[in-house]
Amino acid sequence: MMVPGFKFAATAAGIKKPGVLDLALMVADTPAAAAGVFTQNRVKAAPVLITKERLRGGAAQAILVNAGNANACTGSQGLAAARETCRAAASRLNIPARLVLPSSTGVIGAPFPGDRITQALPQLVAGLHPEGLPQAARAIMTTDTRPKTSELKGTIDGRDFTLAGIAKGAGMIHPDMATLLVFLFTDAAATPKVLKTLLRQALTTSFNRITVDGDTSTNDTILLLAGGRAGNAVITEAGPAMSALGEALTQVMADLARQVVADGEGARHVYRVEVLGAATPGEAKKAAMTVATSPLVKTAMAGEDVNWGRIMAALGRAGARFAPELVSIAFDGHLVVQNGEGLGVEAEAAARQVIKSGTFTVTIRLNNGGFADYYDTCDLTEDYIRINADYRS
Amino acid sequence: MMVPGFKFAATAAGIKKPGVLDLALMVADTPAAAAGVFTQNRVKAAPVLITKERLRGGAAQAILVNAGNANACTGSQGLAAARETCRAAASRLNIPARLVLPSSTGVIGAPFPGDRITQALPQLVAGLHPEGLPQAARAIMTTDTRPKTSELKGTIDGRDFTLAGIAKGAGMIHPDMATLLVFLFTDAAATPKVLKTLLRQALTTSFNRITVDGDTSTNDTILLLAGGRAGNAVITEAGPAMSALGEALTQVMADLARQVVADGEGARHVYRVEVLGAATPGEAKKAAMTVATSPLVKTAMAGEDVNWGRIMAALGRAGARFAPELVSIAFDGHLVVQNGEGLGVEAEAAARQVIKSGTFTVTIRLNNGGFADYYDTCDLTEDYIRINADYRS
Repeated sequence: MMVPGFKFAATAAGIKKPGVLDLALMVADTPAAAAGVFTQNRVKAAPVLITKERLRGGAAQAILVNAGNANACTGSQGLAAARETCRAAASRLNIPARLVLPSSTGVIGAPFPGDRITQALPQLVAGLHPEGLPQAARAIMTTDTRPKTSELKGTIDGRDFTLAGIAKGAGMIHPDMATLLVFLFTDAAATPKVLKTLLRQALTTSFNRITVDGDTSTNDTILLLAGGRAGNAVITEAGPAMSALGEALTQVMADLARQVVADGEGARHVYRVEVLGAATPGEAKKAAMTVATSPLVKTAMAGEDVNWGRIMAALGRAGARFAPELVSIAFDGHLVVQNGEGLGVEAEAAARQVIKSGTFTVTIRLNNGGFADYYDTCDLTEDYIRINADYRS
Repeated sequence: MMVPGFKFAATAAGIKKPGVLDLALMVADTPAAAAGVFTQNRVKAAPVLITKERLRGGAAQAILVNAGNANACTGSQGLAAARETCRAAASRLNIPARLVLPSSTGVIGAPFPGDRITQALPQLVAGLHPEGLPQAARAIMTTDTRPKTSELKGTIDGRDFTLAGIAKGAGMIHPDMATLLVFLFTDAAATPKVLKTLLRQALTTSFNRITVDGDTSTNDTILLLAGGRAGNAVITEAGPAMSALGEALTQVMADLARQVVADGEGARHVYRVEVLGAATPGEAKKAAMTVATSPLVKTAMAGEDVNWGRIMAALGRAGARFAPELVSIAFDGHLVVQNGEGLGVEAEAAARQVIKSGTFTVTIRLNNGGFADYYDTCDLTEDYIRINADYRS
């Protein structure tokens, strides 16, 4: 996994437990075109504020990320410490500090240990390597049980290009914002404006269509850096080249989003809630999201119980118009509800086997129009409670 | 616990496990003025449809309630079976069937066992007794661990009156509708229109201010019957008499609502989220509700962890305007956040003791205006998952 023109490194700075990777650095050989999307949360972490500000220039050369401390609700100390770590990294890399983007994830409200990051920088910079991205993916994990990486190669203007990305997720995952940390790198050349447009488009079918617990974070950040080493003509507007890059981005982000849901805190079953036949796009979205976030549906899936009554009850409060007596519900094509009524024990037994497979799609037909939407989600298990009740201890 | 003019009975009809109370009958000596509020869910159970229809007449004489089967998503069979059980009860009571209101709670989508109810009627009617209300409270329980009753005596026009009620709750509890079954009885005299007005007013400070899991039911029903045996002049409009009855209703419903939250599925900690200083009433409500429903805040409370960062993160996505650096958060008056920043380990230790007490108030000051609101809620524990993953088995 390499992206020409980029190097990556990770180290253990002592922010999480001693010896555990918790600090990553990602560096472009030369300033790269850059774009980002960020949390819509009114409470924004210090690194989010700084990175948003710095991205106004449309260029970046390095991303400095730590796990174990969110640097959120840390006031002026947090802002100053984040700026100081970037300045120290810039100095070691011999680049302007404004080209270094900070990012953090972890506990909210704990004082930010900037000193530990600064102290770890020599070792971190020394470790920069073209093949270091998987290690960086490991360093940004919090309650994730496995690192998340994705890579895709393609062609633009007859030139080969690579797009690779990493993500961390697990908890505080909900759509309508970039709900986690995601870092994407490509050697294709494009303007920051094009990158921003493509990021927003790819979001709608990836990170804006997943939900773990409906909670959202103070630190959500997706960054995309385009270095230009592929040698294509800089993409400045819509056309085949922009589409090629956009399709790659859509695929890589969808792949990372699926990995995030599959590794949702405590998840044992991963499923897509698909709503068809809604009267408007908005109603399709609300219906899919309400069923996907319902704790009673989630716990039923954890218990491998085809409790379709809870799906009906969630639909009924979603704000989508439908006639209950026209609704059908299927698990991977096995119908359990038709015309609003259950099809009985045998139908449920078949659906239960589908749930037991661990990955499946719940298809809901409202039969009230032509619009569809979906959300990917996971079940709610006792492990989710255990993970989150003990998170800070 | 008696309300002059009413009798109550409960029996085991075999809808839940054999020998467990699951059927209740509540009867007025003569037709009573009646009002109700119902689920806003688009999927409405058969008994909800029938009861709404019958209440248009403004009078009722009996309520027939079963637990163990919601009679929801049961199509025409469910509607016919509910009507038939009411007809059979009316016949035994020698009253018109239109004065019998059906109500059901339990599993959604299972065929409705109307025959078992009809067969249990002789025994049920024979058991009617002025002091039978606590038994009825027991019969309507589903995952509740204890029955919920409340009673209050007062004076209207110099006449003593009684108001008593029962409720069942536990899961699928969320505001913005009457999210559970609640039956209220008084011997005061009032018109159905007055009863409806008072019910709606009392809702805003009781069942519309509690949340367990954000899910809502197909069967939610609150009914109030006023028999008139107290001998007061029938209350027809606003005035001291209407206020006296309204205050009693507010108190009894708030008491029942608190009992429902305290017995939330798996609950070990019960708390009020109080938001002060919001810019509008709507923003105060949204902020309180978002913090009260956040699974990450709920799991932190389960772990007795003063994880105020999650409260800040939930506030930030609530849609209420505020400056993070002006927010303060206190647990029963012990400040843990001031000016948006944590007050340190000692402050958190004091707050942790508050959480350990089991019942407490989280006070959030937005310092952005003069409006306040609150929600009562409970923590999210592994028992919630256990109860709901295994609900139908």
